[in-house]
Amino acid sequence: MRGLKYSLLLVFVLFTLPSIADNSRLKNISDIKNYTQENQQQILQDFTSLLALPNVSANTQDMLVNAKWITNYIAQRGFTSEVVSAGRAPYILAEKSVPGATKTILIYAHFDGQPVEPANWATPPFTPTLIDKPIERGGKPIDWDGKSPLNPEWRLAARSAGDDKAPVIALMAALDAMKAHNVAPSVNIKLILDGEEEVGSPTLEAIMQEHGDKMTADLMLFCDGPMHPSRNKQLVFGMRGSMTVDITTYGALSPLHSGHYGNFSPNPTDRLMRLLTSMTDEQGTILIDGYNDEVRPISEVERQAIANIPPVDEQLKYDLAIAESLGKTVRVEEGALSPAIIVKGLQAGGVGNQARNIIQSEATASINMRLAADQTPAFLRKKMEAHIKKQGYTIVHEPPSVKLRRENSKVVMLDWRAGAYPAFRSKIDSPQAKKLAAIMNSMDEQPTILTPTLGGSLPIYLFEQSLDMPIIILPIANHDNNQHGRNENLRLQNLWDAVAMYAVILSEYDR
Amino acid sequence: MRGLKYSLLLVFVLFTLPSIADNSRLKNISDIKNYTQENQQQILQDFTSLLALPNVSANTQDMLVNAKWITNYIAQRGFTSEVVSAGRAPYILAEKSVPGATKTILIYAHFDGQPVEPANWATPPFTPTLIDKPIERGGKPIDWDGKSPLNPEWRLAARSAGDDKAPVIALMAALDAMKAHNVAPSVNIKLILDGEEEVGSPTLEAIMQEHGDKMTADLMLFCDGPMHPSRNKQLVFGMRGSMTVDITTYGALSPLHSGHYGNFSPNPTDRLMRLLTSMTDEQGTILIDGYNDEVRPISEVERQAIANIPPVDEQLKYDLAIAESLGKTVRVEEGALSPAIIVKGLQAGGVGNQARNIIQSEATASINMRLAADQTPAFLRKKMEAHIKKQGYTIVHEPPSVKLRRENSKVVMLDWRAGAYPAFRSKIDSPQAKKLAAIMNSMDEQPTILTPTLGGSLPIYLFEQSLDMPIIILPIANHDNNQHGRNENLRLQNLWDAVAMYAVILSEYDR
Repeated sequence: MRGLKYSLLLVFVLFTLPSIADNSRLKNISDIKNYTQENQQQILQDFTSLLALPNVSANTQDMLVNAKWITNYIAQRGFTSEVVSAGRAPYILAEKSVPGATKTILIYAHFDGQPVEPANWATPPFTPTLIDKPIERGGKPIDWDGKSPLNPEWRLAARSAGDDKAPVIALMAALDAMKAHNVAPSVNIKLILDGEEEVGSPTLEAIMQEHGDKMTADLMLFCDGPMHPSRNKQLVFGMRGSMTVDITTYGALSPLHSGHYGNFSPNPTDRLMRLLTSMTDEQGTILIDGYNDEVRPISEVERQAIANIPPVDEQLKYDLAIAESLGKTVRVEEGALSPAIIVKGLQAGGVGNQARNIIQSEATASINMRLAADQTPAFLRKKMEAHIKKQGYTIVHEPPSVKLRRENSKVVMLDWRAGAYPAFRSKIDSPQAKKLAAIMNSMDEQPTILTPTLGGSLPIYLFEQSLDMPIIILPIANHDNNQHGRNENLRLQNLWDAVAMYAVILSEYDR
Repeated sequence: MRGLKYSLLLVFVLFTLPSIADNSRLKNISDIKNYTQENQQQILQDFTSLLALPNVSANTQDMLVNAKWITNYIAQRGFTSEVVSAGRAPYILAEKSVPGATKTILIYAHFDGQPVEPANWATPPFTPTLIDKPIERGGKPIDWDGKSPLNPEWRLAARSAGDDKAPVIALMAALDAMKAHNVAPSVNIKLILDGEEEVGSPTLEAIMQEHGDKMTADLMLFCDGPMHPSRNKQLVFGMRGSMTVDITTYGALSPLHSGHYGNFSPNPTDRLMRLLTSMTDEQGTILIDGYNDEVRPISEVERQAIANIPPVDEQLKYDLAIAESLGKTVRVEEGALSPAIIVKGLQAGGVGNQARNIIQSEATASINMRLAADQTPAFLRKKMEAHIKKQGYTIVHEPPSVKLRRENSKVVMLDWRAGAYPAFRSKIDSPQAKKLAAIMNSMDEQPTILTPTLGGSLPIYLFEQSLDMPIIILPIANHDNNQHGRNENLRLQNLWDAVAMYAVILSEYDR
């Protein structure tokens, strides 16, 4: 603990114009940790209550139930809030004013989750369940009595445990802990909680136009995404963009007997596979002409930052049971600065006992494109369509007519899905970044990892466009939280650490 | 009608040793046609009752209900029968002795159907429904009053309408029609009705070992498969073999966020697509080394028979909305004499609203291999596995261990499914073939099409191995019956034609 106190002291010296009285600041991080330790059951119970609410964004009624739960929960900590929408899922805008505070931190998180296939889960996705380790590594549900000490390596399994319902719980617990020790936040706090992030926040732009003036602040913290696999504290300065296209190829007008027509009718599954594999090589390198023309180069500072990150590739490969990663020697953190084209789903008839001896009439794949900084959805769409044409395809954007199918041997339907957005990449060496990193570094002796870009996506470009403030991403979830997949989970230690981290930042940001 | 009587007469002259009194023979095919016309409603009602019984082979209880219905139905026409099994689905063995008959025809059909996905059907698969034309061409259900004349172009839509519940109905209607006109069969009739054809008749071999002695006959007629698209009467002398392998490729141990790991983790879907497309070219030509080594060449007689078949490729392409068929200029009937490798199903995550931004942990495809004459499953399995190894894969036949996945960059699981069997191709110019063709030709002025091989598969090799008799395939279903697919149907005229054809054959085979 000696090292901790010393480095906290160092931070306090760095900021010479406190606007909040020093007697309300955090004296010792142990106070927060002890509070968290003593109140684990209550914090976990709150988290469990929130995770039990189904939150697939398309189900607006469900999302409103979530919004109501959250607004009640934060109201008990002095937040005023309003639930707004632009014709789709709800967003929560909330604010807590702190007497004497002159600066404001705006915090973003989202409370919707990816769709679930409960049959694939070891425990029901909306029945939060403690498990002793990841299911993939033999994890089993814990028969917890609700009172015994919680092993910090246990995980709470549920949809959105890792992505992204934990920040609101950890933040409120941090405020509870601060209050218990008479620590006041040094800043006003604003929240924007997104109810449709997992579908690309299609109405966020409209929300920003209508309510952007309420979101003014001095710093925006994006609380989403997984932490670095080393489990060190981390600040992230960029996210990739994302867009999705569904690609459908066609065979005969109706499914055909695979024997009688197997050497006659084109097989749309075969067509689709050839088309998709023409877009990248085996290592994932994109082969589409001109596709990478817009990509922003990696700067020297960014290369250095990556070199400073503890290497995790070997451990990751071991944990994920991958013998060889794509690009072989490209570090995972460097790969995230490049674009990617990923076949995320492909449906072309059943397998196993569900297989039938037919040639499908059509086959569809869903392609997720991850955008590097400066790439734009419109440009990439143009390049991909040009590539598909070059493979001999006639492109349509609605289901093709019978006539068109009769007259064109290769027909493809492209369904560009809503919610496309570009990447975001801010300066890793701005004064604000350095200040936040210094506060984080004061918490313990492990240096905070500064990551130029996470491979995932957040609609940060919208805030970047309309709000004049630095934006920094602050992830809290364990890297192996199965985000978006089955058996999603949050490691309990990550929750306890997040409480402490939020408390230190809120206490110290404007001293 | 003059041509008809003339050619009937011709047939009678051909056979000089009738063992059944000539006064019990069929005088005029119109008698049968009139009977069928007058009893359409009853025949259709019987067919509907049988089709209403769910018949997915894996559901043994359902299959027993079907078997009971059929044994009752045929008992009313003088058949004794027994339902036998070898630990799986039931088979029906039945026999009707005809006083004075010295020869016996053994008739094969099957009463199970492919699995159904009711959501994809326009009408419920087990609620037989009259439709005015194929659903794919705008067909709609008919609100039939049960009495008005039936348009012969209407179809009855239900699973197994085309494949393969019609023969038992048409055969019994033929016997009813013959009886109504005092026509006796010229032969004893035996039936073997298969309850598991659609899964490759896995226990047929055991059934043959136990009950083969009851199946002795002078000629075996296989009543299955679609007729030629020209709708001409048809005899078929071969079927391809069939085998299925499910192929699973692997990525990371659990599904991963497609953004964070999109340039790091191998994507099993991408792997699978590259592996599958390495097996054939775009035209379906097999590229696996040595795979075609066993294929029996096409004989001159067979080439000539194909040349005599009315060409249907252009019409087929129009009907199926295919601009260009595989092989481009290869006739559909010639293609059926070659092997094929067809991806019949591929499951690798959802599409559309079911898509999630993840990299799958595994991807599985189900591959149907159609075997040409003389190809053997064991040889093809060896060649395919050698090909897969050559692509850098470590092959397993059970789910791979984590250790194996960590140590081998490309792992594939091959699940060779039960029910593999070789092709069957008998002589198109044997005396028995010529005799049957002559009887068929006597029915009208259209010459019977002699097809060397249909592209589909039947487990005929088992009968070929154990029974010493000629085996000829006699299909009755319309070619566009959507066999195995959604909206399967039988065109009513095909049902009426089958009644007449069976009656003529039974009356005339041994006069």
